Amino acid sequence: MTGLATALPDIEPARLVFTRNSNPKPPPESSKLVWGRIFTDHMLMIKWNALSGWADPHILPYGPLSLEPSSSVLHYAQTIFEGLKAYRDEDGKITLFRPDMNMKRMNRSAARIALPGFDGDALQKLIMKLIEIDAHWVPQLPGHSLYIRPTLIGNQPTLGVAPPTDALLFVICSPVGPYYPNGFKPVSLYGTTEFVRAAPGGTGSYKLGVNYAPGIIPQKLAAKQGYAQNLWLWGPDHLLTEVGTMNVLAVFKKDDGSIELATPPLEDVILPGITRDSVLELARAHASGSLSLDGLPKNFTVTERPISMKEVKAASENGTLVEIFGAGTAAVITTVDRIGYLGEDVIVPVGEDGLGPVSRVILREITGRQIGKIPSSWSVVVKE
Amino acid sequence: MTGLATALPDIEPARLVFTRNSNPKPPPESSKLVWGRIFTDHMLMIKWNALSGWADPHILPYGPLSLEPSSSVLHYAQTIFEGLKAYRDEDGKITLFRPDMNMKRMNRSAARIALPGFDGDALQKLIMKLIEIDAHWVPQLPGHSLYIRPTLIGNQPTLGVAPPTDALLFVICSPVGPYYPNGFKPVSLYGTTEFVRAAPGGTGSYKLGVNYAPGIIPQKLAAKQGYAQNLWLWGPDHLLTEVGTMNVLAVFKKDDGSIELATPPLEDVILPGITRDSVLELARAHASGSLSLDGLPKNFTVTERPISMKEVKAASENGTLVEIFGAGTAAVITTVDRIGYLGEDVIVPVGEDGLGPVSRVILREITGRQIGKIPSSWSVVVKE
Repeated sequence: MTGLATALPDIEPARLVFTRNSNPKPPPESSKLVWGRIFTDHMLMIKWNALSGWADPHILPYGPLSLEPSSSVLHYAQTIFEGLKAYRDEDGKITLFRPDMNMKRMNRSAARIALPGFDGDALQKLIMKLIEIDAHWVPQLPGHSLYIRPTLIGNQPTLGVAPPTDALLFVICSPVGPYYPNGFKPVSLYGTTEFVRAAPGGTGSYKLGVNYAPGIIPQKLAAKQGYAQNLWLWGPDHLLTEVGTMNVLAVFKKDDGSIELATPPLEDVILPGITRDSVLELARAHASGSLSLDGLPKNFTVTERPISMKEVKAASENGTLVEIFGAGTAAVITTVDRIGYLGEDVIVPVGEDGLGPVSRVILREITGRQIGKIPSSWSVVVKE
Repeated sequence: MTGLATALPDIEPARLVFTRNSNPKPPPESSKLVWGRIFTDHMLMIKWNALSGWADPHILPYGPLSLEPSSSVLHYAQTIFEGLKAYRDEDGKITLFRPDMNMKRMNRSAARIALPGFDGDALQKLIMKLIEIDAHWVPQLPGHSLYIRPTLIGNQPTLGVAPPTDALLFVICSPVGPYYPNGFKPVSLYGTTEFVRAAPGGTGSYKLGVNYAPGIIPQKLAAKQGYAQNLWLWGPDHLLTEVGTMNVLAVFKKDDGSIELATPPLEDVILPGITRDSVLELARAHASGSLSLDGLPKNFTVTERPISMKEVKAASENGTLVEIFGAGTAAVITTVDRIGYLGEDVIVPVGEDGLGPVSRVILREITGRQIGKIPSSWSVVVKE
């Protein structure tokens, strides 16, 4: 699918060329960080060509890219990206959270849009090297992290719509504070039926740039009506798909007294989120008894199944809706307190701390594993 | 929708700054042109900022753009474009074909994706100035033209998914030969049901970059099965929507002996093509008697209505399918000779010259008007 013959060179960490930034900046005070605005002193860049494969990786001073005006990414949106975070614990140890999942997903995205595939382990190694070099940029305050953005763009300098002859992979890093600096505040959602984020047979289950810019106007229109984000609904049954740029999960009380954590299945229109996967894996481990998460009920089930707005509305009205939350790398967990739907508001329960009974436990467990307080195989050490 | 307050400066041709290319290239021989690979000596560039509006337009030497690695277009596919052509007639006169339509469509696209709007007449004037400066690049051979590519990208250097604070409009020009250099050759289509190009509530009716890169893999898979292009089918009825990156039109013999030119209506999933519009306007003028197109039947109707593969297949089998063709700026008209559909080939009639009875007449009329042989208000003089 990728046009990369196996004989061509793959990404090769041993061939790394490093050009140190001779004019480094001081990292900003952690308390003054604005999400995604400030970048570290260095970036990683790797060129690809259809005839010569992946070139030598470079770590070089952060700075502008030089792109031909005819570059395919500028005209045909040939771009994919990932988002992951590096954390610094109290002892100064720096870790990544499940970076192998990002590497796998990035390769899957690349194949969907005719960009070249690559050795995910090799890119992960190079990202770790980049973080090591800019280690003093990884913030230490609770809820802070270094946001890492690998991006791969088609960079063929001709106007034909075709698999590219050239591509460019780059990784930039941005120190970030908590996504919700004033603590957990639930968001309101606008149940969106006028616009779709993704359709079966489309690109919604891949992390492509094309899934993002078209959501900006719907988001503005939702904000105009007093809602924080879009709840993307699909089809005549108004099935829940995603929240803004996050996966969505809902918790219901069942007739038999059990508690169900439900989320739409990974089909065509749902992005395979790594936070989503982490939530499900933890919740399933609890449900099966292989892990005990303090605060989660014993009688607990986890399902991937379609959830309709009709079901959510009925559950809100009859008291069986426990909570709804979004899951994503940027904010980890975002709880919901109401959904504007066909002209009225569906009320979603939420605790005084802004969390619900399931999201509270899951958030504590995931952030504990991210920062390394709770040891797990998900945490990969970059620097002791 | 655009975030551009009316008090901010719009695009202003009188403020044009021109930097001449001190190292111009000789235009290549017309016979050696490859589509979209070579660009003229100059380009037009206009920056936009949310606080200061549109900056002074610059015409400057063609060359690479400098973009921050965090630029929104590279991550979130915030890009729109247009394609139009300048023609040189036997006397050397240079004309554009319906450029006002491109300017209107570009503004409509911009609004959909939160890019700034602009004065279309002003941009058209500046494009004409750019063509004048590079006039010796406009080829004169039959079927040749100067392809003009206006592009508008979101260029905010931060990672939030939001309306951009910065944007960049640029226009580049490429001399092109006939899209099918060896004369008209009908193409085969793969009736595509596994992938969708666009869905209701999506972006298919806007000329956004996001509609293009996701089509590359489906095109490769169609080619692997021996078909030249995708015929994008929608919904359970497998409705015809577009052909590759063109609009699609079909001609049927009706029971009453009349001939019907039909095309899907401009709804959510159909791009409002300028060639499509030109075909329909000419065909309707003939049908109403206000224009007589030599070769088209008198008993002729033009309809915008859904067309299903079931209808096409039945018409192919019972002899009432007259022809099917694509319409777009790059190739003007592309005829179809077969459609692979659910494992078998639906045969589409086509004449010995590679055209059908309707497409032949329409193509002659449109290209006549494009080159100025047939005088019309659609042709706008750039340079006498």
